[in-house]
Amino acid sequence: MGKLFDVILLILIVVSVIFVMLESVKGFSENTYKWLYYGEWIITIFFSLEYIARIITVKKPSTYIFSFYGIIDLLSTIPLYLSFIFVGSNALLAVRALRLLRVFRILKITRYIGEANKLSKALKDSRAKILVFLFFVLISSIIAGTIMYLIEGEESGFVSIPVSVYWCIVTLTTVGFGDIAPVTPQGQFIAAIIMILGYGIIAVPTGIVSAEYAKKMNGKPNQDDPDYVHVNTQACRNCGASKHRDDAEFCHKCGTHLHPEDILE
Amino acid sequence: MGKLFDVILLILIVVSVIFVMLESVKGFSENTYKWLYYGEWIITIFFSLEYIARIITVKKPSTYIFSFYGIIDLLSTIPLYLSFIFVGSNALLAVRALRLLRVFRILKITRYIGEANKLSKALKDSRAKILVFLFFVLISSIIAGTIMYLIEGEESGFVSIPVSVYWCIVTLTTVGFGDIAPVTPQGQFIAAIIMILGYGIIAVPTGIVSAEYAKKMNGKPNQDDPDYVHVNTQACRNCGASKHRDDAEFCHKCGTHLHPEDILE
Amino acid sequence: MGKLFDVILLILIVVSVIFVMLESVKGFSENTYKWLYYGEWIITIFFSLEYIARIITVKKPSTYIFSFYGIIDLLSTIPLYLSFIFVGSNALLAVRALRLLRVFRILKITRYIGEANKLSKALKDSRAKILVFLFFVLISSIIAGTIMYLIEGEESGFVSIPVSVYWCIVTLTTVGFGDIAPVTPQGQFIAAIIMILGYGIIAVPTGIVSAEYAKKMNGKPNQDDPDYVHVNTQACRNCGASKHRDDAEFCHKCGTHLHPEDILE
Amino acid sequence: MGKLFDVILLILIVVSVIFVMLESVKGFSENTYKWLYYGEWIITIFFSLEYIARIITVKKPSTYIFSFYGIIDLLSTIPLYLSFIFVGSNALLAVRALRLLRVFRILKITRYIGEANKLSKALKDSRAKILVFLFFVLISSIIAGTIMYLIEGEESGFVSIPVSVYWCIVTLTTVGFGDIAPVTPQGQFIAAIIMILGYGIIAVPTGIVSAEYAKKMNGKPNQDDPDYVHVNTQACRNCGASKHRDDAEFCHKCGTHLHPEDILE
Repeated sequence: MGKLFDVILLILIVVSVIFVMLESVKGFSENTYKWLYYGEWIITIFFSLEYIARIITVKKPSTYIFSFYGIIDLLSTIPLYLSFIFVGSNALLAVRALRLLRVFRILKITRYIGEANKLSKALKDSRAKILVFLFFVLISSIIAGTIMYLIEGEESGFVSIPVSVYWCIVTLTTVGFGDIAPVTPQGQFIAAIIMILGYGIIAVPTGIVSAEYAKKMNGKPNQDDPDYVHVNTQACRNCGASKHRDDAEFCHKCGTHLHPEDILE
Repeated sequence: MGKLFDVILLILIVVSVIFVMLESVKGFSENTYKWLYYGEWIITIFFSLEYIARIITVKKPSTYIFSFYGIIDLLSTIPLYLSFIFVGSNALLAVRALRLLRVFRILKITRYIGEANKLSKALKDSRAKILVFLFFVLISSIIAGTIMYLIEGEESGFVSIPVSVYWCIVTLTTVGFGDIAPVTPQGQFIAAIIMILGYGIIAVPTGIVSAEYAKKMNGKPNQDDPDYVHVNTQACRNCGASKHRDDAEFCHKCGTHLHPEDILE
Repeated sequence: MGKLFDVILLILIVVSVIFVMLESVKGFSENTYKWLYYGEWIITIFFSLEYIARIITVKKPSTYIFSFYGIIDLLSTIPLYLSFIFVGSNALLAVRALRLLRVFRILKITRYIGEANKLSKALKDSRAKILVFLFFVLISSIIAGTIMYLIEGEESGFVSIPVSVYWCIVTLTTVGFGDIAPVTPQGQFIAAIIMILGYGIIAVPTGIVSAEYAKKMNGKPNQDDPDYVHVNTQACRNCGASKHRDDAEFCHKCGTHLHPEDILE
Repeated sequence: MGKLFDVILLILIVVSVIFVMLESVKGFSENTYKWLYYGEWIITIFFSLEYIARIITVKKPSTYIFSFYGIIDLLSTIPLYLSFIFVGSNALLAVRALRLLRVFRILKITRYIGEANKLSKALKDSRAKILVFLFFVLISSIIAGTIMYLIEGEESGFVSIPVSVYWCIVTLTTVGFGDIAPVTPQGQFIAAIIMILGYGIIAVPTGIVSAEYAKKMNGKPNQDDPDYVHVNTQACRNCGASKHRDDAEFCHKCGTHLHPEDILE
């Protein structure tokens, strides 16, 4: 029963996110927008009721209300009510997309959760490094952006230092929209240097996450790998063989008991 | 003989793919299109005959028909016949490109196959992680796309939330077409944050595949790793314990000899 | 007290960088520019006083003046004074962004410093490799740029070899502005080859930094690695053999006791 | 003397490459082009003399002529002579850039050579994997290109299948020029899938080179690392201590001879 309710809830979340997205698209018939509007309201009322039901049934309502999911649940219902007062605020309904995170909780895919945890752990552990890196990128972008502003000037689209800094970030991250691009030879020369040096530097976060993740992955014996068991360096008293399994009680080479003191107990 | 036939088949596949591609190019002379058309037909008839021949000669036709290559073989011949009925359906002939996958089978480059297997294995093993990652990317794109839609509006090309989400995916993957680009200062500020944060996050799949692949590459028990020994799935006759070391002669759990037949010899 | 002064200084640096950036933005009211101008002057005078105070209080003024931070401190004050003489030179004030590097010194985030050191060490160690790589990229860009210039010509925007080389760098680093793009079939074909081959090659710096960084991270002898033990440079008194294990008591070459003083005790 | 000659040669190569590049730039004065032309000729005559001198002085001229550098030396002189016959052929002089590879030979930077060798070795070892990968990218591009051609059609710039395939390669490699971009909702949807999936797959070459290079780097005990010696798992007969150095003859713990059989011999 509870499982079925959860799946229905999940489908409703997906449907409501799609509704919010479609509502912003121009060119549908009048009728379509009407139906989207009605659908929006039905789902919102359902979400509101679910929110109230949760508060009532949960032992400690305050814990739920101020939890991550509690706040999201509230934020994903009020925008539509607010749209009576403020025009356009129902676009905020997109916050519902965050409710999709529940997919992990509902489907109870522990394996996926495990991966997600490992990933977020790797990102968390490399946070300090990534922050230092981003700080350097920001400083470099400010310096390089100012240089580009001085060289290229406003005719090329580098209308101000902030815009130049924005361009530098676009270039360093290799996104390269091309809405602004250097046109003078000197500007293109500096841009080439920024790109090449930038490319060398930008490899850093990938390297960090790679290394951090590889460490995480090899951290503890992988339970999923059948060929992997914990062995230790204890040597058998009788034959000297080592690399016994951690939980071994007899030598795998000569069969002598490895822990005679246990027997005596 | 069979080898020669395979090579000819491969060349015909390449030729037919090139023919389909060229046929879509404007600007050739009338004659060229005629020759391409005739060439198309000759190759298609050849493929059809080969398909029929395979079904006849193969022991279990149904196994072939519903196999991966069987379906591709069928799909790569019918579009031309269908083009009598539906205009433009012969463009579907591009599915023939999939037949190129046969190059692995035909040239019997076991070494290359081995690499392909290792690669696809590494991708398969990191599937769960990559799915979790893509799920987060999608949710972030929906949230960020809506924010950009609200900030930039339709004048900048962010005409609807789906289009904004599309722009976010283009930006997060660092493709950056530039057909849509933020023009307002706030929009460029949010875009810069999306790019920088996105760049840090996007390093994740590379890190995953890197680490997974490195593990795969060192697939055979690493002799240098003290915590890693070859174990097998043999169960002890006495206590049922498994995961014995490959060279174990006694059960590590109860001390029973694992290979009594060796003693009898 | 000193800590408070440092934090105020840091805030002033951030404020002054923002002021310089805002000053370049068009479209504010007359008043805003006036305030920015006054603010600029107040901060500059404060910086000048701080610079003089440092020279006076520091024991060896010359060491400070020619140090990295000393030069930056000077460079971040003079541009505004120079702007009386040379128009536009106050844009050079962006050099103040470099002062932000002080954030590391002031906040004494040793942990972050540690990460920054590890990062810069990893980059330093892979410098030779990255230089070799960049050199190859440059040569390839010159060759490929010339080929593209010959194929595409001026109509497509490849107006000269240097511009073509610039385009090649933009393409190889996957930035891809799109201000210049091949339009002829041959040009697009060569471009596709450049991109695909380039993509394979461009993976190299990431790989280098990744591997180098992973090594750095595992810098201390890995306890899990059986082939890795702590050795020291102590030489045996008897045979001169070195690289003994840290906990060795006897020479592994001749069996002489390494620490006779321990025995005497 | 020979060293000095080499350095002069290197400078001349750099100068001549710059001359060829500048010659293609429009907008200089008549005089500049004349000087560039004369400079070109002087350097070319010098290179020709050097080429002839090498053939004369080298013991086995044929070995030199058909060697990598011999062919480059020839190719970098003839284009100018050819320009008397074929207009524009002097642009081929850019092949001189390849002569820059000599920088490695001349400056005898063995350390850099070592890095270059390691790099090219890592690339060579992962060649099979990268080829398999590129093959899959090509097939995917052909399939995805055809789909985009069918969906977007000629109005959006997808004028033919080859152009669509070119667009797919531009997108998959995350270059993203933006000269061609999908405009229909369906096209943008498929493009988003191509980008996201593509991004996951494109991580592969980086992963490959990373892993391969890391292996290369850790391949053999690093002689530069003072803390690294080969140890084995042999246990001492007397005290059971293990992890002796590979070349140890006495136990580092109790001083017992590890190989008494050697003494008996």
